[in-house]
Amino acid sequence: MSKLSKPIGVFDSGVGGLSVLRHLVRILPNEQYVYLGDTARVPYGNKSEETIQEYTRQAVKFLLQIEAKLIIIACNTASALALQIAEELSDIPIIGMIHPAAKAAAISTKNGKIGIIGTRATIGSKAYPQVISQFQSNKTFEVYGKACPLLVPLAEEGFHEHVSTELIIQEYLTSLQSEDIDTLVLGCTHYPLLAPLIQKQMPNATLIDCGEYAAFEAQTILSLSNRINSIEHIITPTKIDFYLTDSTPLFPEIAERFLGFLIESPTRINLE
Amino acid sequence: MSKLSKPIGVFDSGVGGLSVLRHLVRILPNEQYVYLGDTARVPYGNKSEETIQEYTRQAVKFLLQIEAKLIIIACNTASALALQIAEELSDIPIIGMIHPAAKAAAISTKNGKIGIIGTRATIGSKAYPQVISQFQSNKTFEVYGKACPLLVPLAEEGFHEHVSTELIIQEYLTSLQSEDIDTLVLGCTHYPLLAPLIQKQMPNATLIDCGEYAAFEAQTILSLSNRINSIEHIITPTKIDFYLTDSTPLFPEIAERFLGFLIESPTRINLE
Repeated sequence: MSKLSKPIGVFDSGVGGLSVLRHLVRILPNEQYVYLGDTARVPYGNKSEETIQEYTRQAVKFLLQIEAKLIIIACNTASALALQIAEELSDIPIIGMIHPAAKAAAISTKNGKIGIIGTRATIGSKAYPQVISQFQSNKTFEVYGKACPLLVPLAEEGFHEHVSTELIIQEYLTSLQSEDIDTLVLGCTHYPLLAPLIQKQMPNATLIDCGEYAAFEAQTILSLSNRINSIEHIITPTKIDFYLTDSTPLFPEIAERFLGFLIESPTRINLE
Repeated sequence: MSKLSKPIGVFDSGVGGLSVLRHLVRILPNEQYVYLGDTARVPYGNKSEETIQEYTRQAVKFLLQIEAKLIIIACNTASALALQIAEELSDIPIIGMIHPAAKAAAISTKNGKIGIIGTRATIGSKAYPQVISQFQSNKTFEVYGKACPLLVPLAEEGFHEHVSTELIIQEYLTSLQSEDIDTLVLGCTHYPLLAPLIQKQMPNATLIDCGEYAAFEAQTILSLSNRINSIEHIITPTKIDFYLTDSTPLFPEIAERFLGFLIESPTRINLE
C-alpha cells in the first residue's frame, strides 16, 4: 500500500463520529477511510476514565494494524480522557476532538465567555477549559461546562426536532445563558444534529462543530507531510470501510442519513 | 458455606436490576445477595442478540463462581435473548424477567389485550408474546409490543417526573391506547420508576412490575427446595455485595434511592 493511499482511521464509540466523517469526506474527498464504531459498548459518556482509556487503547491498536496514515478520535469523551494514551501507542499523527474545537472557540469569542456542552465524562475531565487556557494571551477566557447526558439518546432516537428535546435543551442551557456566553462548543459529535434547537435557545452564540475543525486539522497535517491523496486516485463516492464491534442493523441507514450516500455493509470485529 | 447461606445472584446490565432487588429484599429479607451490574457495557437494549448472549454468559459464569444458590437475570433484555444460554451453563435455578411477568399479565387481563413495553431488543425478540401464548386455554390473548428506547436514559437521569418524559411516554403509548389493552407489562426494570407517568397515560390498565413477580417466583423455588434462609440468620439491613464492571461513582447513591438503605462500596471486576 503506498503511503498516500493508506486510509484515514476514524474511531468513535458508536454513530456520533459520522458527523465528523461527514466533514472529513467534504474537506478531504479523495482519501480512503476506515470507520471503527464500538457499538457493542456504546455509549462511553457516563463511563469511567479507566474504562474509556482501555476501550480507546483497543480501538487505536486496531487502526494501527490496518495501517492508517492518520487517526481521528471522533468522540469527545475518548478524546478528553484517552488522547495521551492513544498518542503513546502510535507513531502516526492522532487528532482528537478537543484541541481543534478549543482553538476555534478561543478565536471566535469576543467577550471571552465560552460554553462547553458534552457528556458527563467530557465535562468532568475539564479537558476543554485546560486546552482553551493555552490560547490565553491578549484575551482571557471564562469557560462554563455543562453535561447534557440525555442529548445523545435523543439525537440517536430521531427526536432532534421534538418538543421534549427542546424543553430538555432549554433546561440544560439555562445556566450557560445566564453567564452571557457568546460561543458554545458542541462538545459531543452527536450534538450537530441538535444544532437548530440549540441555536434557537442561544440565538446570539456562535456554535462550534468540533468535527469541522478536526477535519481542517487533518487537512493541515496531511498537507504538511505531503500525504493528501492526489486527484488522480479519485473515487466517487469516497471509499469508506466500516467496522463495528456489534452487528448494528440500523447503522447503514443512520450512516446514509449523515453522509448522503449508501455505504457498504459494515464488518463486525471483536476488540476485546 | 452452608447451602442456606449461599447468596442469591442478581445480574443486570446496570442499575435497572435494583428495582428487582428491592422486591427481593422485601419478600426474602433474610437472604444474602450478590448484585452484578455490567456498567462498563451498559445499556444492552439496542445491542444484538449475539452480543447480549456473550455478555450474559460471562455474567452467569461469574455468579456460578461465587456459588450463588439461585440466579435472577434482573434485566428483561438479557432474559429475552439469553435465558436459555444461561440455563445451559448452570446447574442451579435461573429466573428471568419474562416468564413471571407474562404469567401475571395472562392472569390479570380481562379482555385478553396485553401491552408490553421494553427495549428495542426485548420487543424485537418477541419473547413476551411467545411466553404469554403458553397460558392460552380458556382465554385468548392479543399482545401488543412497543419499544420505548428513550425511557431508560430518562429514568436514569432523574427525569421521571419531567414534562418531557410525559410527552415522550404519551407518544410511545398512543398505539397501545388505541388497541384498548387492559394490562401493561413494564418489560424493562427501569420502568417502575416511571410507573406514575405511565399509569397517568393508561389510567385503566393494570401495570405489571416484572421484579415483583420474579421475586415471588424466587420465593416459590427456594421454598420448594427448603432453601429459604431461616430467621435465625437474620441480618439487618439485608447483606448485599455489589460487583460492577466499571467504577460507577453515582451507583451507591442510586442504589440507596432504590433500596432505602446505605450500601457497602461496590467491588470492580472484569468480565471480559
